[in-house]
Amino acid sequence: MKEPGCALCDAPGGRVVVQAPRWRVIHAEEAGFPAFYRVVWQDHVREYSQLPTAERHACMDVVTTVEECLLRHLAPAKVNLATLGNVVPHLHWHVIARFDWDSHFPGPVWAAPQRTVDKERLAGVAARLPALEQELLSLLPRSA
Amino acid sequence: MKEPGCALCDAPGGRVVVQAPRWRVIHAEEAGFPAFYRVVWQDHVREYSQLPTAERHACMDVVTTVEECLLRHLAPAKVNLATLGNVVPHLHWHVIARFDWDSHFPGPVWAAPQRTVDKERLAGVAARLPALEQELLSLLPRSA
Repeated sequence: MKEPGCALCDAPGGRVVVQAPRWRVIHAEEAGFPAFYRVVWQDHVREYSQLPTAERHACMDVVTTVEECLLRHLAPAKVNLATLGNVVPHLHWHVIARFDWDSHFPGPVWAAPQRTVDKERLAGVAARLPALEQELLSLLPRSA
Repeated sequence: MKEPGCALCDAPGGRVVVQAPRWRVIHAEEAGFPAFYRVVWQDHVREYSQLPTAERHACMDVVTTVEECLLRHLAPAKVNLATLGNVVPHLHWHVIARFDWDSHFPGPVWAAPQRTVDKERLAGVAARLPALEQELLSLLPRSA
């Protein structure tokens, strides 16, 4: 179920926070967005709708748990969810905590930046990630 | 369950293709993206994870049916799914057919454009929407 040459078949794609046979959660290390996670489906699947229903729901249950942890630990202005895959067509969901002070808010993270960001605020979010990730580890079913 | 002043509580937000008590599918009429649909939750819900599990799954089942119709009728290079809501924090999913010739591909639709688009190709996609929407009407459970 691996695709030769696919970046998300060949490598984790970021720092692995927790993984199970069907999915992994990675921290994406995107500059300016300290709480940017991805839920990557382990098998090479191109489109979300190509998963069987039970797996689609299981995938979104993981996305939902990540979103809930972001809301609980970081109190962001909004959480953004997206699966695009135009460049790497291997099913992965972006789960991004957005703050009204971040470089692009309220624009999407892919739009033009609107301001420079206060490094102390970025560091303040980063400081909360260990506890957030500890809770993710406790909540996500690693056998799933 | 309406929020005063919310753009998606006060108006459909686009041409309604099909709706049910819990959700509606609208055609978004975004310039340059002829097959841009949105699944809007009828009640005012801010974050996807705030829906009860059964409703979350029902919502994604509608998103999935729209994606499947886009794939079947338009053979796009990719379908993009996203719920952002930074500007209008009322749960709505963007479901967008992307083509390798579209103005932004492979970038997100919110990034900078990469080329001008052939109007004949746009018209070719638009001509297929009536059949696609007829299938959506037949597949989506309007009582749901």
